[in-house]
Amino acid sequence: MTQAPLSRIPRHIVSASDYQQQARHHLDDNAWHYLVGGAGDEITAAHNSQVFASYRLKTRVLADVRQGHTQLSLFDKSYPHPIFLAPIAYQHLFHQQGEQATALAAKVMDAPFVVSTLSSTLLEEIGSEGEQALWFQLYFQAQRQQTLALVQRAEQAGYQVLVVTVDAPLAGIRYREQRMGFQLPQEVRAVNVLGATTVTPPTLEASQRLVFKHFMMNAPTWQDLAWLLSVSRLPVVIKGILSPENAEKAVQLGVAGIVVSNHGGRVLDGVLASLEALPAIVQVVNGRVPVLLDGGISRGSDVFKALALGASAVFVGRPYIYALASAGALGVAHLLRTLREELDITMALCGCATLSQINASCVINVGEKCPH
Amino acid sequence: MTQAPLSRIPRHIVSASDYQQQARHHLDDNAWHYLVGGAGDEITAAHNSQVFASYRLKTRVLADVRQGHTQLSLFDKSYPHPIFLAPIAYQHLFHQQGEQATALAAKVMDAPFVVSTLSSTLLEEIGSEGEQALWFQLYFQAQRQQTLALVQRAEQAGYQVLVVTVDAPLAGIRYREQRMGFQLPQEVRAVNVLGATTVTPPTLEASQRLVFKHFMMNAPTWQDLAWLLSVSRLPVVIKGILSPENAEKAVQLGVAGIVVSNHGGRVLDGVLASLEALPAIVQVVNGRVPVLLDGGISRGSDVFKALALGASAVFVGRPYIYALASAGALGVAHLLRTLREELDITMALCGCATLSQINASCVINVGEKCPH
Amino acid sequence: MTQAPLSRIPRHIVSASDYQQQARHHLDDNAWHYLVGGAGDEITAAHNSQVFASYRLKTRVLADVRQGHTQLSLFDKSYPHPIFLAPIAYQHLFHQQGEQATALAAKVMDAPFVVSTLSSTLLEEIGSEGEQALWFQLYFQAQRQQTLALVQRAEQAGYQVLVVTVDAPLAGIRYREQRMGFQLPQEVRAVNVLGATTVTPPTLEASQRLVFKHFMMNAPTWQDLAWLLSVSRLPVVIKGILSPENAEKAVQLGVAGIVVSNHGGRVLDGVLASLEALPAIVQVVNGRVPVLLDGGISRGSDVFKALALGASAVFVGRPYIYALASAGALGVAHLLRTLREELDITMALCGCATLSQINASCVINVGEKCPH
Amino acid sequence: MTQAPLSRIPRHIVSASDYQQQARHHLDDNAWHYLVGGAGDEITAAHNSQVFASYRLKTRVLADVRQGHTQLSLFDKSYPHPIFLAPIAYQHLFHQQGEQATALAAKVMDAPFVVSTLSSTLLEEIGSEGEQALWFQLYFQAQRQQTLALVQRAEQAGYQVLVVTVDAPLAGIRYREQRMGFQLPQEVRAVNVLGATTVTPPTLEASQRLVFKHFMMNAPTWQDLAWLLSVSRLPVVIKGILSPENAEKAVQLGVAGIVVSNHGGRVLDGVLASLEALPAIVQVVNGRVPVLLDGGISRGSDVFKALALGASAVFVGRPYIYALASAGALGVAHLLRTLREELDITMALCGCATLSQINASCVINVGEKCPH
Repeated sequence: MTQAPLSRIPRHIVSASDYQQQARHHLDDNAWHYLVGGAGDEITAAHNSQVFASYRLKTRVLADVRQGHTQLSLFDKSYPHPIFLAPIAYQHLFHQQGEQATALAAKVMDAPFVVSTLSSTLLEEIGSEGEQALWFQLYFQAQRQQTLALVQRAEQAGYQVLVVTVDAPLAGIRYREQRMGFQLPQEVRAVNVLGATTVTPPTLEASQRLVFKHFMMNAPTWQDLAWLLSVSRLPVVIKGILSPENAEKAVQLGVAGIVVSNHGGRVLDGVLASLEALPAIVQVVNGRVPVLLDGGISRGSDVFKALALGASAVFVGRPYIYALASAGALGVAHLLRTLREELDITMALCGCATLSQINASCVINVGEKCPH
Repeated sequence: MTQAPLSRIPRHIVSASDYQQQARHHLDDNAWHYLVGGAGDEITAAHNSQVFASYRLKTRVLADVRQGHTQLSLFDKSYPHPIFLAPIAYQHLFHQQGEQATALAAKVMDAPFVVSTLSSTLLEEIGSEGEQALWFQLYFQAQRQQTLALVQRAEQAGYQVLVVTVDAPLAGIRYREQRMGFQLPQEVRAVNVLGATTVTPPTLEASQRLVFKHFMMNAPTWQDLAWLLSVSRLPVVIKGILSPENAEKAVQLGVAGIVVSNHGGRVLDGVLASLEALPAIVQVVNGRVPVLLDGGISRGSDVFKALALGASAVFVGRPYIYALASAGALGVAHLLRTLREELDITMALCGCATLSQINASCVINVGEKCPH
Repeated sequence: MTQAPLSRIPRHIVSASDYQQQARHHLDDNAWHYLVGGAGDEITAAHNSQVFASYRLKTRVLADVRQGHTQLSLFDKSYPHPIFLAPIAYQHLFHQQGEQATALAAKVMDAPFVVSTLSSTLLEEIGSEGEQALWFQLYFQAQRQQTLALVQRAEQAGYQVLVVTVDAPLAGIRYREQRMGFQLPQEVRAVNVLGATTVTPPTLEASQRLVFKHFMMNAPTWQDLAWLLSVSRLPVVIKGILSPENAEKAVQLGVAGIVVSNHGGRVLDGVLASLEALPAIVQVVNGRVPVLLDGGISRGSDVFKALALGASAVFVGRPYIYALASAGALGVAHLLRTLREELDITMALCGCATLSQINASCVINVGEKCPH
Repeated sequence: MTQAPLSRIPRHIVSASDYQQQARHHLDDNAWHYLVGGAGDEITAAHNSQVFASYRLKTRVLADVRQGHTQLSLFDKSYPHPIFLAPIAYQHLFHQQGEQATALAAKVMDAPFVVSTLSSTLLEEIGSEGEQALWFQLYFQAQRQQTLALVQRAEQAGYQVLVVTVDAPLAGIRYREQRMGFQLPQEVRAVNVLGATTVTPPTLEASQRLVFKHFMMNAPTWQDLAWLLSVSRLPVVIKGILSPENAEKAVQLGVAGIVVSNHGGRVLDGVLASLEALPAIVQVVNGRVPVLLDGGISRGSDVFKALALGASAVFVGRPYIYALASAGALGVAHLLRTLREELDITMALCGCATLSQINASCVINVGEKCPH
């Protein structure tokens, strides 16, 4: 039996890791393992967090940070802080109010919310009519007209930015989900794309492989990205980049920004942790567009480290879903308040009054390979 | 009591590591410890797998891999994929149908099967008369005429390649087998070499050592390899190389290929893991002959990493025996299908349409010394 | 139920780590967790000790150390050894005699005691009237006249050195204290600053953050340090430095010495361990003023390693409080005797007759990242 | 209750680590903890073994080692193999026959036995009258005439080499022994030095330290070593060197050889592991005298690695005492046979026919810091 979500935040919940423990009580096995799991042996899912320990903070004392703030500007909009809510599908799996609870908390805490193509709430029904910062995460659909329809719906609904996810052309190898036989409950559906075309697998010759001749046959390519850039009126940010070569190509094609991400370690196990991939990508992009980091953020100091290595902002993923499952909108808002305060304090103690003062001199790579 | 092999694959078996757990239920202590054990403290047996964690995959997005495949050509034959079944002795220890079950699965999954000199099935009775890819693993016998007889039988039975194992001139130091008093059951025999000459230990002087004056007295040398190369009509691949100097010498003598291997960590504990030894050998061989990797492969991403470091193909060993013990031919076939799909997916996500596109730029050595 | 402090030292207590275990029996949860805990996930609190394992001692045999001693001179005073008692607040939390017990032990063992601004005993009532080495740790107060009053009281009470702590302008993020709802018992009070002004949080606009606009608004800056240097008649040592740039600035402003410290990992988790920060600071200071190390010292060999890396003396913190809780003044004295003997023995075995002979050639950095 | 020693070797004892487990059953707490323990937190005692994992063996195949042997020449004597029994005090603590059992096993297995000054058997009563290789380990006594008497007794009793231990001028900091109150049983005595002078601690002034003014006042110096070299008719080997500078000085004074050792981690915790210290010492000595390694050897492959890094021979310590406790002379002999065979096999598989062929090219440092 799962417990009902909390209606107040107990004293012992003070950090993202507390929410992870708490969430276990509010989710059934199906939802829990889907949420916490990753691809393969889940090494990458764990690495994403662990590699932050490779960097130590270097405090700076007696700095005057009385004018301190965490504002940033991205794609011609201003945001009060750099902690964004990552796109996560099917949020009704985790709480009865799903994406609407998340959106409410995001609004209260001034956090942009990136709504997933696979949200379990209609994209038009999320948020409060343009009053809050909403971005839309786009999966390419089997047919361009379907993709275009999603883009146009997002534009009309007032979303500010399109985040196109390119690292999951197929479902990945999720041992845990397979072992438990994960199934989406009937009442949780990808309501934005209910009528989407499903491609029937072709008849294959003996030497042909389903991965290449079916899944990848319908996967997007750079041509599709170019097309998307040509049809979108919103800034297009590409999500799922781990290689500097890919970052260079994306910038040359005209993306507005890059999200370094490995999809939370949910698609392919053994890849670079997001933070490991960040510095080389920041170097090659060289300021032409903003680079954001997704993966492994669970503390304000993690945000600080990502920014020190060149990220402009970060996406927080599983932690806010743990908070959602634990206490709905209240939980997400509390988590966000905690992360913001932790970032503020980290900045103050490292002598940074603004995000732009957070740079490589604020951290030291100690090359730790066995983080605690 | 051991359990009978499964007749269907349950949902919770989705990876090689699942088969390892499952196999424990189907093997008695004698067979289990013989299979899973290694030399000494079994550090190398474990390292073989662990060192793969030193390398992280670098995904590449939006690549066009619609023409993707995994074919390769080796020694003038074409193979649909690079995952080969390593030579493992006495397979009737693990399943009632022994090598014949393995051969059936190999055929169904297009995997070359390297039959051991010490197979518990006559080499002539394995496989389906030339319709499938069979290689023969050769141990030098005490007398050249006995070795020659094996070579000629393999040639006549249609084997395509000779794999001569050179890293086990003596049995190694297997603490685990000694502690448990491992014994081959009477009904499991090395039927290919039943009449082989056994050398009687000589009478030694006080200062003489059994290892040098008995075991190594009868061990093969480079002269024996040269002789083998002169009498074999099949391509001869040398297995058990860890040193670049040895690789150079073998190439100069005319071997068709090299298998980097430490015999699954079963002969000498504390040696280089196979993957650790690979790069220097690839460098010295420099494309003159193919280099294959044996040891530690249990995932499609491991295959990918080995190829990225220069291997042309890999041998999978214990994992398929775990599958054989768990579910016979069905298990081996399922494991092979799983590994192939994992390789396909890894290639697709790393933007490699063919094996030749898998190269050093696809992985990054993070120098991790404490893998999970 | 907590146990009464020991009145004799049992045989099994021979090291600082023994006192840590023992102290658990003598403290209630509130005091224990406050004492042992740190900021965030307490990674830094643990690192402070662990990083000492990165350095191995290099013994030197047959040296003539018959004239050996551990005397040093600091700020024109002579001290018999370099092991000082760090400033720790509210010592009545841990033992009924609080700071007075510590002072008694310090006197017996010739250890300078750095009394905290937040001591639970009046600074004038600690120690034995100028007969022992007392330093005073200063927190800047909300108003300069209050700070000045503290400085003058310390001067008049015979304190020798002012240690101004600059790394805790706010309370830090202490998950453990928050989770348990730590509260100071009513009878334990910061008696030196009972009448201190409390600043009321301002009314903030939506975009303003409490950390910057309240806590940091009242935090000291380099101007305040300059002022302090101008009004203090005592040598002023700055405590809480981790960055070489800050060390340089402090030296240029005229501090008498620097204490490398991260506040025992109690303010910000994830910062450099003190010992990690030490070498770069020693290098930049280059002998202009003494550099002391605070954090992670629990053995005589730790003292030796710190000195080998350039520290002139060290502060011991939690370990002496564990001893205080276990056995009052007797415990602290015993711990100090143990640490002194360990240092003497380490010096003797490394062939160092004086502290000045302890240098970088006495240790080797083995780059160990996973200490035991 | 401890068990009586075994009178035959059970099947499950096949390695040094098996003897360690077995010995626990045959020793009371007092003897066990004295034997297994080390200085301080016993980190060095563990490191001595663990650091061998930093080096991987590089096998060489098809080598002709039919003339293989393990003979070596040291100080004008020939020895059949390089595995020596380290000096260990008070062997009657561990077995009723003490040093005599060890000597018997050593003779049977052709292993030189280094008898301790603190042996619990008279040095004249150990071994079989010149028929076996005995070395004598010397501690400097409080008075030179007492030291000289020991030297002359060893010469007359036919000992071949003097091994003078210089790394333990005082007893070290042994937490474990202190905690348990270790006491030598009355019937176990240092019979070679029963009448030795005991120096009474002097009356110290307040500022004087017992370590320097008492223990080190009587400790040997380089002058004493020079004196010893002038009076000894036997080759003098210095034991306990970790620093290249000390090795250079010893060679210049005229020692016959150097034993790199940290006294089994029993004197000072946190020092270099013996194997870590070896390469720099081999480099500075540069072949002028033999260098031996003591500490951490428990497998034939460890012997091989030590020789690959430049040692001429190795001392095995605790492992043979575990065997002695388990099964007396039979146990020690069996252990030695096992180690010899393991060395033979390692050499054969690495293509080394003689000890002189074992060199740096046979191992690779993988920089592993977290050995298994």
